[in-house]
Amino acid sequence: MKVYRVNEFGSWDALRVREEALPEVGPGQVLVRVRASALNFRDILIVRGLLPYGPVAGMIPHSDGAGEIEAVGTGVRRFKVGDRVVSTFFPNWLGGRIPKHREQYMVEHDGWLAEYRVVSAEALSPMPDHLSFEEGATLPCAAVTAWSALGGVGPGDTVVTLGTGGVSIFAIQLAKLLGARVIATTSTDDKFDKLRQLGADNLINYKETPNWGQAVRDLTGGTGAERVIEVGGPATIAQSVQAVANGGQVSLVGALGNQGGDIDIMKLFYSQAAYKAIGVGSRSDMEEMNRVISLHKLHPVIDSVFDFADARAAYEQLDGRKVFGKVVIRH
Amino acid sequence: MKVYRVNEFGSWDALRVREEALPEVGPGQVLVRVRASALNFRDILIVRGLLPYGPVAGMIPHSDGAGEIEAVGTGVRRFKVGDRVVSTFFPNWLGGRIPKHREQYMVEHDGWLAEYRVVSAEALSPMPDHLSFEEGATLPCAAVTAWSALGGVGPGDTVVTLGTGGVSIFAIQLAKLLGARVIATTSTDDKFDKLRQLGADNLINYKETPNWGQAVRDLTGGTGAERVIEVGGPATIAQSVQAVANGGQVSLVGALGNQGGDIDIMKLFYSQAAYKAIGVGSRSDMEEMNRVISLHKLHPVIDSVFDFADARAAYEQLDGRKVFGKVVIRH
Amino acid sequence: MKVYRVNEFGSWDALRVREEALPEVGPGQVLVRVRASALNFRDILIVRGLLPYGPVAGMIPHSDGAGEIEAVGTGVRRFKVGDRVVSTFFPNWLGGRIPKHREQYMVEHDGWLAEYRVVSAEALSPMPDHLSFEEGATLPCAAVTAWSALGGVGPGDTVVTLGTGGVSIFAIQLAKLLGARVIATTSTDDKFDKLRQLGADNLINYKETPNWGQAVRDLTGGTGAERVIEVGGPATIAQSVQAVANGGQVSLVGALGNQGGDIDIMKLFYSQAAYKAIGVGSRSDMEEMNRVISLHKLHPVIDSVFDFADARAAYEQLDGRKVFGKVVIRH
Amino acid sequence: MKVYRVNEFGSWDALRVREEALPEVGPGQVLVRVRASALNFRDILIVRGLLPYGPVAGMIPHSDGAGEIEAVGTGVRRFKVGDRVVSTFFPNWLGGRIPKHREQYMVEHDGWLAEYRVVSAEALSPMPDHLSFEEGATLPCAAVTAWSALGGVGPGDTVVTLGTGGVSIFAIQLAKLLGARVIATTSTDDKFDKLRQLGADNLINYKETPNWGQAVRDLTGGTGAERVIEVGGPATIAQSVQAVANGGQVSLVGALGNQGGDIDIMKLFYSQAAYKAIGVGSRSDMEEMNRVISLHKLHPVIDSVFDFADARAAYEQLDGRKVFGKVVIRH
Repeated sequence: MKVYRVNEFGSWDALRVREEALPEVGPGQVLVRVRASALNFRDILIVRGLLPYGPVAGMIPHSDGAGEIEAVGTGVRRFKVGDRVVSTFFPNWLGGRIPKHREQYMVEHDGWLAEYRVVSAEALSPMPDHLSFEEGATLPCAAVTAWSALGGVGPGDTVVTLGTGGVSIFAIQLAKLLGARVIATTSTDDKFDKLRQLGADNLINYKETPNWGQAVRDLTGGTGAERVIEVGGPATIAQSVQAVANGGQVSLVGALGNQGGDIDIMKLFYSQAAYKAIGVGSRSDMEEMNRVISLHKLHPVIDSVFDFADARAAYEQLDGRKVFGKVVIRH
Repeated sequence: MKVYRVNEFGSWDALRVREEALPEVGPGQVLVRVRASALNFRDILIVRGLLPYGPVAGMIPHSDGAGEIEAVGTGVRRFKVGDRVVSTFFPNWLGGRIPKHREQYMVEHDGWLAEYRVVSAEALSPMPDHLSFEEGATLPCAAVTAWSALGGVGPGDTVVTLGTGGVSIFAIQLAKLLGARVIATTSTDDKFDKLRQLGADNLINYKETPNWGQAVRDLTGGTGAERVIEVGGPATIAQSVQAVANGGQVSLVGALGNQGGDIDIMKLFYSQAAYKAIGVGSRSDMEEMNRVISLHKLHPVIDSVFDFADARAAYEQLDGRKVFGKVVIRH
Repeated sequence: MKVYRVNEFGSWDALRVREEALPEVGPGQVLVRVRASALNFRDILIVRGLLPYGPVAGMIPHSDGAGEIEAVGTGVRRFKVGDRVVSTFFPNWLGGRIPKHREQYMVEHDGWLAEYRVVSAEALSPMPDHLSFEEGATLPCAAVTAWSALGGVGPGDTVVTLGTGGVSIFAIQLAKLLGARVIATTSTDDKFDKLRQLGADNLINYKETPNWGQAVRDLTGGTGAERVIEVGGPATIAQSVQAVANGGQVSLVGALGNQGGDIDIMKLFYSQAAYKAIGVGSRSDMEEMNRVISLHKLHPVIDSVFDFADARAAYEQLDGRKVFGKVVIRH
Repeated sequence: MKVYRVNEFGSWDALRVREEALPEVGPGQVLVRVRASALNFRDILIVRGLLPYGPVAGMIPHSDGAGEIEAVGTGVRRFKVGDRVVSTFFPNWLGGRIPKHREQYMVEHDGWLAEYRVVSAEALSPMPDHLSFEEGATLPCAAVTAWSALGGVGPGDTVVTLGTGGVSIFAIQLAKLLGARVIATTSTDDKFDKLRQLGADNLINYKETPNWGQAVRDLTGGTGAERVIEVGGPATIAQSVQAVANGGQVSLVGALGNQGGDIDIMKLFYSQAAYKAIGVGSRSDMEEMNRVISLHKLHPVIDSVFDFADARAAYEQLDGRKVFGKVVIRH
């Protein structure tokens, strides 16, 4: 079978394909024929050697995979041969409280950029029936992050999203299923139509309206948004503080934009809101989300699909940041 | 009857007592013989003219009052003559979602530094039976703030408190009733015994251990505290970020310490915690707290009691900041 | 002004209109020009003398009213002249925990079957802007009951409703806004189209399928429904137990059907579900619901509208039970 | 190694010890040297052949075991050799929503009445450090059931417990850690002292006060108890309905008492409370509970300890029902 391993860090050249023997299935394990995997910015940071905690050289990358069960070990009741499955971002966070140490792909575990993988049956979830493998592969990181970032949102609330990356697009789609109103920001009017089709109720071009926080307040009669899905970090937090309602929440998802400085903690206090760091979620979080995705037959938005042999091109596509949805590799 | 009014802002001299006629009681209203009122830093900021939003000259100060019902208007079923009551911090936030505009004493309403007050019966709550008026008067602002800041804490959690002001002392007492472990910080070992008697399980002298955030981590086996009651603002937030557990919460209560600079939003993200601004609470929040205070016969900690005629001395006592608990005026 | 009062109990004749003087507005009170009121089964039970706790002879009936503010007393900030408002079911349950005694119309308070009413400003909520007075008048009892009965439902859940009374119709509409799947039962296929237009995903004729609990299980792949809005009481509880999922909830709303016997408590245990009595809700509950109704421009379903002079005909219409939505009186 | 297996159902004779070979440890699995196991009424029903769903002849009984890890398979990070562990009641309910099928010991899995067991590392939780193996073995069923039955209780609430079985005793201890007031009922005054030592605030002899529901109301100023831990089923439900507060909850835990008839569903409605079936809990629920047990160094109450060879005597002890706490077997 073919697998990619990241043998050193620093450039796309680190990504190299090799031939390996098919591993055996032990008790409690399953053999997965991987059919698709999806990329996240974390994968770019890993290959570049920029992840602040330690990925391990020589491992298989990609936290997000989807495939089919080809064999089950003794004692496995959770799946049977032929079941379609997706990976979970943290293989050991199955539910409940965050474990003291969350294990990760490329740190403790080989990932999904491979033709086959043998893993514990507990590290997988059933894939929603209506999805293709390419769609299913987008769920473990970006969709679960959006789901966790929306936790507690209900109909009557207003949600603000930033840009058209994977998390933001999922946030729009899931927020609509939660009954919320969505105000989506983007850098170009060209994307307005596609965002509207996904359910965005209001659109703001943040290049033309750099003070979009105030624009959100205006659109909400002065109240502000109950939830901001903050993916920009230092570059956007000041506007998010401006946009959020008293009693609302800014979900801190990441730092796609590095420009921008520090923030006065008293501004957070006077906003009378909460600022909550989101760290993807547990297997149970993903399964709650998948119930919703299944019932409403939600289809993830895929920016582009690359062949297994062209993994490097997929990295370059995501790294260019001009994406609308997820970048996927077909295995 | 005698009342204090704040006729201008800038110095303690602004606080002047005067004689006024007793107001009449209309439908839905009650006449309260005020027996005690308590001071908060907000009152100091008001008299000094430093409150960032607008107090109105000529009004009666003090958000926190306790007294006895002397007369009830038509249609009042909530209280009867002789009932002992306490004020609520926001007279129009009775429960549920934060109202678009929260009315406040010294802004829209005359406060409690008076011998008598006529108010809507809805602006009051029953005082727990086991408390004196001096004790009851401490509840509306500091105790409710501590209660809200502890929202969601349970037995099994660790709570960190800073110093010995009113909110921090209530936070220690209430955290123990919630079953939590308390790590209390203070500036001097002299207060260790009193803090232990209130229930603190561990004590840190933050002058001797300026990196007390790490000390909290060490005391919790590396996990950190599930809740930090952050009253220091810019001066202490960096240590609070260090102290809080993944998945925990720093409750932003105020800014007693003004030294210290801005904070990198990515530090908040990497802490994987939530930073939630606390704005006292509703009447319903206070009544939930009072159930607990009543069942457990909790007694608020009073730093000092001043006579009605000596209100200015009470302000000076709180302003000196060398308090252990609440400063109260007996009417 | 004209008002109806219920002078004795037992027959529709008890409902008599009379001319009374306009009451005066005191501090904290408002004068409402009532424009519409809505009927609930509780009103029928009251006039018939069948309500199990004590309505008081001589009072004005109807818990549900909508109108316009014509005058405000001193100190009223919550409303101004011209505001459109609706009543709240329990005038003294403003939010938070259920008060020890919930005051009610026809027990402690005159109700809304009148041209004018003077009440405390706290007993009213703003009416959603997009509604007519007839629509607004339907909210206080039936809609809030449906809202409370749906508490905790989210997208991914399945909700079962019984019949086409006011609560059930609101439950269908609100469940869709919460993102849920709705299985609606009714006694006749004629209503299928209208129920589908309201959002019902599946329909069951409970006359043709008396074992509809099993039909719900079949429609949910054996899982059962996460929520059953149980309005039938003894007549339908056995099927509701059959329909509900492990970990789900049957919301006990009332007892429209009196036939049927007792239930074995062990059946409730083995269903591994919760059975929760719903008692309308607080003002805060109504205001949360109204945010949702306003954002989604939900229009209540009105069965029929009667003139103020024809109140008796309205009672007869509801009593006939062949309704689809709410029976309303235009004042 | 020695194991007990239940070869047929109907009498204690079915419990027979035999010698078996030590099983091998596969990937993801651990070898546990079982040091103690605890009995539940479920075990009695199983051996007697009275469990309503199907236990399988030939399996090892006991859901509750504690022991030491003697060997770990490849890939196990959750435990290392020497770790002390307890079993979880449902080996496949690790957290989150109840799985469609909860696997059980004696149904899908061999249980813990054995000297050694090889199981998935996911089926175990760390044992609190301060406990003996005999104490640890009591946690998986009775303690988790009490914990789940108390879910949502806080300081300020009143909890009612019935009798001195394992669940009720744990409910008293855990309710005190949650800050609640406890009213304990029992059949004899002899047990009053021991119950008081465990933290019970009030005691009722239910033989002398058969209408103990009213006694609970009297003790709570007419309000009733916010939570009743209902272990008696048909025999006691009528009194529990009487005891529970508006807005409170009766947790339906089981049916130790079979006498008593059906209940009118309208009585449940008029109580304005919730009746929630409790089905033990997930691994995550147990781990939340164990945090609390560890922090507060709670020690389970053990009625009696039997040697591994005397398992039958342990069954007879529990079957006699004159227990105060848990019956345990030392392996």
